[in-house]
Amino acid sequence: MKFLVLYAHPMETSYQSALHDTVVTALRDAGHTVDDSDLYAEGFQAVLSRAERDQYHDTSTNQSTVTKDVQRLLDCEGLIFVFPTWWYGLPAILKGYFDRVWLPGVAFDVSGPKTTPLLTKITRLGVVTTFGSPWWLNNLYVRNPNRTLFLRGIRRLVSPQARTLWLARYGMDYIDKSTRERFLQRVRSKMLEF
Amino acid sequence: MKFLVLYAHPMETSYQSALHDTVVTALRDAGHTVDDSDLYAEGFQAVLSRAERDQYHDTSTNQSTVTKDVQRLLDCEGLIFVFPTWWYGLPAILKGYFDRVWLPGVAFDVSGPKTTPLLTKITRLGVVTTFGSPWWLNNLYVRNPNRTLFLRGIRRLVSPQARTLWLARYGMDYIDKSTRERFLQRVRSKMLEF
Repeated sequence: MKFLVLYAHPMETSYQSALHDTVVTALRDAGHTVDDSDLYAEGFQAVLSRAERDQYHDTSTNQSTVTKDVQRLLDCEGLIFVFPTWWYGLPAILKGYFDRVWLPGVAFDVSGPKTTPLLTKITRLGVVTTFGSPWWLNNLYVRNPNRTLFLRGIRRLVSPQARTLWLARYGMDYIDKSTRERFLQRVRSKMLEF
Repeated sequence: MKFLVLYAHPMETSYQSALHDTVVTALRDAGHTVDDSDLYAEGFQAVLSRAERDQYHDTSTNQSTVTKDVQRLLDCEGLIFVFPTWWYGLPAILKGYFDRVWLPGVAFDVSGPKTTPLLTKITRLGVVTTFGSPWWLNNLYVRNPNRTLFLRGIRRLVSPQARTLWLARYGMDYIDKSTRERFLQRVRSKMLEF
């Protein structure tokens, strides 16, 4: 299966980077083809420009500044996001990826009375993320906005039969090395069978 | 009272721009001082860099690339955000504002066992935003991540006595001109008495 991995963290020495390596390696070990998109390394422009906003709903021109990223998205059958949760949400560079690449005519169609999903070729949707703060704060107090974004919002735009996977490690600010290690192993084993 | 207005939209011809003008004018008409920060016009850098991430928790150096934005935040007693909700969340440029400016030692202190809010000078917290999609989708299906971010997450870091205001207009993709006009008037009257 063809996977696209979207990764967003600036430091190659980070735990996120280890998670990213684990995801890519496990998918390849399982026999999948992986298109590995490291948004920081690729210098992805995060901010939707004035011209892009102006032509946002014009599906004949709105992809002109992001043709490669659109093609990579349209080519994949599996999609995995690897990123740290900051401010209960996506790092700006990954938020900008949705703002600029997941366009009308690419990810969804709003020309009719209802929103039509266009990424129905995608049958695997996975998220690997970390939170500095504990589980209860993210899930009980703020109701985990990121989890909802992916498993409800983004989920609507891929195949209705898609399998989803949410792998989150909370409390990064205080967990120990062996807990981090166990999460890496869990991510590897889940990716191998995904 | 000293207000800081954070505004994020690339087009001066947009409805968001009219909302922004309405907010700034109403606050000034009510006798407040307004520091008007237009993130697009100021060319705000959205992406937390490798060096910034590296020194993120070092409160003696982490503000060095954003000193002006930090000072503007520390100077204000009222804070209003004006932006379109995209992908159930903030435009990347505004997300990056939190990632880069709301630092440890500026917005919160995590050096002790608990997170301590540091923006307790702020006694007014307001949000003016629009959604392309309807109320039910944002509130029932995805549980309005942005509302939770501001009224729970951000809310914790300002004064415990702070007054909050959430002004949202849903269904921008299909509402008519008079509905838009009424929302502008509602924003003006709420700002005048905030």
